[in-house]
Amino acid sequence: MDIIIHKNITRYNDAEFVDETDIIAVEFPLTIYINDVEFATLVCTPDHLEDLVIGFLASEGVIRSFDDIISMNIDEGSGFCHIESKRDIDPNYFNFTKRVLGSCCGKSRQFYFQNDMQMSKISAAKVSLTPEQVITLQTELQESSDTFKETGAIHNACISTPDGIIIHRGDIGRHNALDKLYGYCLRNRITVHDKIIVFSGRISSEILTKASKIGVGIVLSKAAPTDLAIDLANDLNITAVGFIRKGTFNVYSHPWRIKKEAE
Amino acid sequence: MDIIIHKNITRYNDAEFVDETDIIAVEFPLTIYINDVEFATLVCTPDHLEDLVIGFLASEGVIRSFDDIISMNIDEGSGFCHIESKRDIDPNYFNFTKRVLGSCCGKSRQFYFQNDMQMSKISAAKVSLTPEQVITLQTELQESSDTFKETGAIHNACISTPDGIIIHRGDIGRHNALDKLYGYCLRNRITVHDKIIVFSGRISSEILTKASKIGVGIVLSKAAPTDLAIDLANDLNITAVGFIRKGTFNVYSHPWRIKKEAE
Repeated sequence: MDIIIHKNITRYNDAEFVDETDIIAVEFPLTIYINDVEFATLVCTPDHLEDLVIGFLASEGVIRSFDDIISMNIDEGSGFCHIESKRDIDPNYFNFTKRVLGSCCGKSRQFYFQNDMQMSKISAAKVSLTPEQVITLQTELQESSDTFKETGAIHNACISTPDGIIIHRGDIGRHNALDKLYGYCLRNRITVHDKIIVFSGRISSEILTKASKIGVGIVLSKAAPTDLAIDLANDLNITAVGFIRKGTFNVYSHPWRIKKEAE
Repeated sequence: MDIIIHKNITRYNDAEFVDETDIIAVEFPLTIYINDVEFATLVCTPDHLEDLVIGFLASEGVIRSFDDIISMNIDEGSGFCHIESKRDIDPNYFNFTKRVLGSCCGKSRQFYFQNDMQMSKISAAKVSLTPEQVITLQTELQESSDTFKETGAIHNACISTPDGIIIHRGDIGRHNALDKLYGYCLRNRITVHDKIIVFSGRISSEILTKASKIGVGIVLSKAAPTDLAIDLANDLNITAVGFIRKGTFNVYSHPWRIKKEAE
């Protein structure tokens, strides 16, 4: 499917209106059925849809591994995805999205949705980065983001090692970009605890939680975090680095993973 | 409540790590109960919470006017909001968030949630702007956004007339900023069809739909739209203007509301 489309627009420049053709990001609704029960509609950039669905379902705790999926059929024309799964949707699932309070299993008071609390992992990752690697990885992400440059509407994310990007995904939805990475890693059985997520957007609690579910130990972003994301990063043993710009950056949690000398 | 907080961070600059204090945006979960039934949890910047709740409930079609609310009690300590409403939640509400297909009432095939289809309005607004007003309003929004400048994590939105901003709101959630404006307008019975929304973020279908529910005829943004947002803007008779930067901009729909001469 096309992820960009050409549209006729009116451009104002130098005190004149001009008719032009512009490149616009496609926004695509994909409705997921699990064993014939409607589960959710994702609004996304329509590429890597299988990875997106797998990552989303794993992140929500609806599947525990890629092997839970018996078959997946995506009809791009209608925007429907039918999944045959070894697991039915837990009848309590929709209660899991209700607010929970209190701490559990040593995890954070900051969690407010039960499925987030269940699926997040305290990181045991020993991966570390030098300041030069932090800056280089963020630059690599930006340079690999052609669709963003064209449309201005895509969030970018990648999984990398300290030495470079392994896989890059973009989406109009911040969390979708991470789900596409997660699905790819699950499908290809790629170990992630020694990897890094590099992200173009702000680090909210939702993004930090998603990174924790994926299982990485370091999250890099050129943008800012929220206080709740920092609290979660502290509790989940994740190193959150933000405002990576012009050779400087801020480390918001677990700075021991950023070291002057490579290990 | 505080909407920003000071946190200790480690800053890397000029090849040195330095411990510093940074200003971070607060992310606050607010769980809404309507007539003792849990309805939704909003994750937001904790200011103007009453307006946020009113705007959100109106946008979801749960209330039809401010008068439907008999009482509202927000406990900032626990993050719970209890509302006594003349209307109970429609037992079918949670089906409204299921995917719908097909067109209805002359509205767009682009709608995929039933409550969006029900609550959006085709604009009859005759308001228009000159190019200079477009550029000035976007500049005014950016200059009034102190919290964004400090934290880098806040989306900004305002309601304006052609001549200037009336009310400005910020939030870590894009749609929350618009709900805070909507709630304010409902509570203060401010007519909006002759007003404009000026926004800092990308114009997705969700944002365009929200603007339509609020009832404005023009949406301005410094960022990009998606194709679905443009299709909706065309169908709903809304003028969508994006990429307002350095004295230039793009008009994506209904350019007749942008006129060289003021009316």
